[in-house]
Amino acid sequence: MAFVNKDNLTQLAKARWETSHSPRMREVMTKLVEHAHAFVRDVNPTEAEWLAACEFLARTGREFCDDRRNEFILLSDVLGISTLVVQLNDKKADGTTPNTVLGPFYQPGSPEMADGQNMAEGIEGETCYVHGNVTDLNGTPVPNARLDVWQADDEGMYEVQLPEITDPRLRAVFHTGSDGKYCVQTISPLGYTIPMDGTVGDLIRGTEISHFRPAHIHFIVEAPGYKRVVTHLFRKDAPYLDSDVVFGVKDDLIVPFNVHDGGESPTGDKVNGPFATVQFDIRLEAV
Amino acid sequence: MAFVNKDNLTQLAKARWETSHSPRMREVMTKLVEHAHAFVRDVNPTEAEWLAACEFLARTGREFCDDRRNEFILLSDVLGISTLVVQLNDKKADGTTPNTVLGPFYQPGSPEMADGQNMAEGIEGETCYVHGNVTDLNGTPVPNARLDVWQADDEGMYEVQLPEITDPRLRAVFHTGSDGKYCVQTISPLGYTIPMDGTVGDLIRGTEISHFRPAHIHFIVEAPGYKRVVTHLFRKDAPYLDSDVVFGVKDDLIVPFNVHDGGESPTGDKVNGPFATVQFDIRLEAV
Repeated sequence: MAFVNKDNLTQLAKARWETSHSPRMREVMTKLVEHAHAFVRDVNPTEAEWLAACEFLARTGREFCDDRRNEFILLSDVLGISTLVVQLNDKKADGTTPNTVLGPFYQPGSPEMADGQNMAEGIEGETCYVHGNVTDLNGTPVPNARLDVWQADDEGMYEVQLPEITDPRLRAVFHTGSDGKYCVQTISPLGYTIPMDGTVGDLIRGTEISHFRPAHIHFIVEAPGYKRVVTHLFRKDAPYLDSDVVFGVKDDLIVPFNVHDGGESPTGDKVNGPFATVQFDIRLEAV
Repeated sequence: MAFVNKDNLTQLAKARWETSHSPRMREVMTKLVEHAHAFVRDVNPTEAEWLAACEFLARTGREFCDDRRNEFILLSDVLGISTLVVQLNDKKADGTTPNTVLGPFYQPGSPEMADGQNMAEGIEGETCYVHGNVTDLNGTPVPNARLDVWQADDEGMYEVQLPEITDPRLRAVFHTGSDGKYCVQTISPLGYTIPMDGTVGDLIRGTEISHFRPAHIHFIVEAPGYKRVVTHLFRKDAPYLDSDVVFGVKDDLIVPFNVHDGGESPTGDKVNGPFATVQFDIRLEAV
């Protein structure tokens, strides 16, 4: 082997990782070497800066990652990488409801609820009915589509962030009827800040970047014969829509919240006091 | 703001980090976005792969970093990045003793020892005398140069890896005399494996990469009016010279170990049993 110098080092390092046993690992690791070296050559860090970077990464893992939290996902989010990965994998046809970031707060195994049932029972907030049509790209209703729905409470907290909570909270699975329609009763979502107590917060505070997400509700929509949609609805005119810290907002996902002073809900109930109704239609592409 | 799509996302993310308050942070973060996005676009990870990458990083920090260990430095080492950073910062003139990686085992505050003193007192191994001339690029001796020397024991362990050790071990500070000469008594270094119990070990086991470093002794050499040298000597003909897992070997740093059956040492002592002598000359560039 030639011994290293500035010019041959990247090629030597790539050649080593070419010996990876799995073809995918070989591809990923050689490209990691290539791009990581290009970054280092571009920013030309001092040795002290590089050590500080390694210490930043160690602290991120040691102090801000556990079974319920992964600060590296948040780092990926604020660098736009999580959304980029979503974009690159979302190969659905134009006109389909686009995907956006899954986020770190999804929990599988949410309870099944009947059409119109309240997934925010006993939780404070503005009553909100989210309803709509699940159709194919021709507008034909998709019956029995499965909607896995979750959101934060009015303090911006998801169930997984509340260690004292043991029962499912602000999350449920709904299905469309034979007409392709669904209705979810919940509370209106609010915008909230990403966790700012970790190393990502330290970075963000060194910038003018807004650390808020606009009000949204998460959906995973699945139906046999159709491509899965992992998305949010966003509240039109909500703060932070144009500065979502995780780059998740798309035009097609923004829907108006119509606020009523009281009266009949979309499920036919009589509601005392104000409530919101939101129509969020979802268009699925056949597999 | 335009909402994101695959094409505008990298520019939008760069623009956000352009708001960094410090010019250096602005440069580093925008280039990080640029190169990290280029890597992601190049390898096109599935969402499951990207999540696995974030979990790998979290585990690296949570399980394999503490006050004495930083697995991210090791990751940087095996990707050739640590050596690249050294190369980019080592701007000394041709003919100067080149720098190589500092490594994670350096400890400041080593004890001062007299010329020829034994920094391996009571430690098992082949007795070894390392001696040489510290000169400028014209060959003129540099008196009173400071040599900070450290190495692993014959099981490949450095002091910081041995929690039961409280006194300085296999490390000391020497000075050249008025003739620019120095002499260190120690034990012959042996090659050793990097720690393979962490996430870096997991990666290496997925390849044919050798996880050993060739036998070496670390030096930091400083003298007023000269540029600092952070380097190793490597034992000529040692195993792993051509496959050093951290890419540290350079031609100019390889020196023969002459093994004697016993007799007079370079310090004039009578040695019973075999011992090695090594001449390692160091050339400093004036500031």
